[in-house]
Amino acid sequence: MKLNIALLAGDGIGPEVINEAVKVSDAIAQKFGHEITWKPALTGAAAIDAVGEPYPDATHEVCKNADAVLFGAIGHPKYDNDPSAPVRPEQGLLKMRKALGLFANVRPTFTFPSLLDKSPLKRERIEGTDLVFLRELTGGIYFGEKGRKDNGDTAYDNCVYTRAEVQRLAKKGFELAMTRSKKLCCVDKANVLETSRLWRETVQAMEKDYPEVEVSYEFVDAVAMRLVQWPNSYDVLITENLFGDILTDEASVISGSMGLMPSASMGAEVSLFEPIHGSYPQATGLNIANPMATILSAAMMFENFGLMEEGKAMRDAVNKALEAGVVTEDLANGGKAYGTKEVGDWLAANV
Amino acid sequence: MKLNIALLAGDGIGPEVINEAVKVSDAIAQKFGHEITWKPALTGAAAIDAVGEPYPDATHEVCKNADAVLFGAIGHPKYDNDPSAPVRPEQGLLKMRKALGLFANVRPTFTFPSLLDKSPLKRERIEGTDLVFLRELTGGIYFGEKGRKDNGDTAYDNCVYTRAEVQRLAKKGFELAMTRSKKLCCVDKANVLETSRLWRETVQAMEKDYPEVEVSYEFVDAVAMRLVQWPNSYDVLITENLFGDILTDEASVISGSMGLMPSASMGAEVSLFEPIHGSYPQATGLNIANPMATILSAAMMFENFGLMEEGKAMRDAVNKALEAGVVTEDLANGGKAYGTKEVGDWLAANV
Ligand SMILES: CC(C)[C@H](C(=O)O)[C@@H](O)C(=O)O
Ligand SMILES: CC(C)[C@H](C(=O)O)[C@@H](O)C(=O)O
Repeated sequence: MKLNIALLAGDGIGPEVINEAVKVSDAIAQKFGHEITWKPALTGAAAIDAVGEPYPDATHEVCKNADAVLFGAIGHPKYDNDPSAPVRPEQGLLKMRKALGLFANVRPTFTFPSLLDKSPLKRERIEGTDLVFLRELTGGIYFGEKGRKDNGDTAYDNCVYTRAEVQRLAKKGFELAMTRSKKLCCVDKANVLETSRLWRETVQAMEKDYPEVEVSYEFVDAVAMRLVQWPNSYDVLITENLFGDILTDEASVISGSMGLMPSASMGAEVSLFEPIHGSYPQATGLNIANPMATILSAAMMFENFGLMEEGKAMRDAVNKALEAGVVTEDLANGGKAYGTKEVGDWLAANV
Repeated sequence: MKLNIALLAGDGIGPEVINEAVKVSDAIAQKFGHEITWKPALTGAAAIDAVGEPYPDATHEVCKNADAVLFGAIGHPKYDNDPSAPVRPEQGLLKMRKALGLFANVRPTFTFPSLLDKSPLKRERIEGTDLVFLRELTGGIYFGEKGRKDNGDTAYDNCVYTRAEVQRLAKKGFELAMTRSKKLCCVDKANVLETSRLWRETVQAMEKDYPEVEVSYEFVDAVAMRLVQWPNSYDVLITENLFGDILTDEASVISGSMGLMPSASMGAEVSLFEPIHGSYPQATGLNIANPMATILSAAMMFENFGLMEEGKAMRDAVNKALEAGVVTEDLANGGKAYGTKEVGDWLAANV
């Protein structure tokens, strides 16, 4: 297969972890006879510094014409303390999601047996957890009309959803559930919000098309509780943009393996793959960042092209590295810590 | 003191736990020479069954004219699976909050040493946790304009806040922080929402009036994570209605003592006190419900009248009961379980 991949390294440790993902992906490509052309492009604070905005048109061109986007991380402390600054890295993120139509953010939370003790939760609560959130990513209150009235003394944000937006996301949820345990949970606040009632009625109407899938409906506040109490009672969860923002982050810390969690943002044409961790500015350039989440994101990318064996080879290599203790300092438990590059080298040699 | 307390028992176990709170409050009143007049009124499913709506005018009259409201729990399974049913118990709750102007929901999360093992979190994560959320309760997306367009295919919910609403809530937050460790965290999503930017700038402008309070600003997704990772790193948190709904419920399960957690909803004129747990319909009438959260809510009520010793006497009695093992089955750990009434009797005798 010939693959054309846009490479958005971003800020902080982004470039370092992206380098290792490229290294391991190239090793996979060579082993399985694929040809990857990487197309680097600017994003985040790096793009603001270079051309004055976080998601430049040139970057959009590269992404639009690629088969997929591999993304590092964005965010820089100099933009952190002023959410009303005229240009911020996050704006690039939202613009990119909208412009590329990345409507479904796929966020798995699973456990690695060797890392269970890193969880803040007790072992018996977390063992066996393997859930996936599908978060709607281009609608809702993020993109509704917002502004001020009354000389700035009143602020508003409108949350809007259309039936078609809900169907598109829910369809992915039902399909994913069919490949897993056939359990789907729709997370909403239908006892209060009209948008949630639209979500719920739309999903209810789709149930008949997937008679094998067992669908449950839970309020967002109840899910925020049960995720901490019994994360392993969930499988596939679908939800709207803002609830997804909060709950996927909550879910990410329960496994204790946050530094290893990949994600995908699926669009109708192009999809994007990125680690869930941030740009970790303090670690920049120190060769200590853990590249595994980015490498597992690249594995999701291969699988999304239907290259299942390739994806599996990458995941197996990561598991082997964890078992062999070839890990960066965040996972070293006081034992020997490898550098970012060394972990990448080992994985490239072992896929 | 002469106290006039509206008594809204509600549904499920509501009446049973309210009975015990009345019993213990009366014992306190007798001991300290107060006189309490209880004014029962209908609410929730019980009110729908009796008069067709969940917060009848007659109930509002009782509450408005009372010095405080003591509330049990509402909700009945027959209303559970249809959020678009024309009359639902929750609507009564929202109507009551708005009509009584209960703008600040106070939700403490603390730990009881003897119950630490009930937490889903590891002991070292939860030990020492003692935080309070102040959730704005009468504004935001709960009460903004909502509806449908395009023949029902588009739904919207508008989130609106005014500077005055934020100031009123934040003032309570600053004042509470001054009585505690002088740390205040404002939880928002100012990198995306205009209402959050109004929250943040309003709180920032108030900082100068409370120079001793150290204020931090965190995004709601980050707080959803840190609550699970290091709950004991928080003290007072202030936030808007929907974020508060999600985060206070998340916080409630981390201590392992959810069945014991009280809450208050403060208004300009009257305030309301209630356990955070629900109506637990399966337990109705079985004399097994834990009345302690309601009794601790009554303790908050006394303290809100400035009757600090009275409140403390109630909390001390609960602590003594926990140590003596005079507890309902949820806390009995396989040991002897007392009934709802017996726990109430013991507490009334021991305050
Ligand atoms: C940076 C921010 C705008 C973004 C979001 O809220 O979507 C982030 O929290 C995320 O979840 O990717
Ligand atoms: C029942 C529901 C409307 C209510 C809310 O969302 O406020 C509840 O979850 C709560 O937190 O008191």
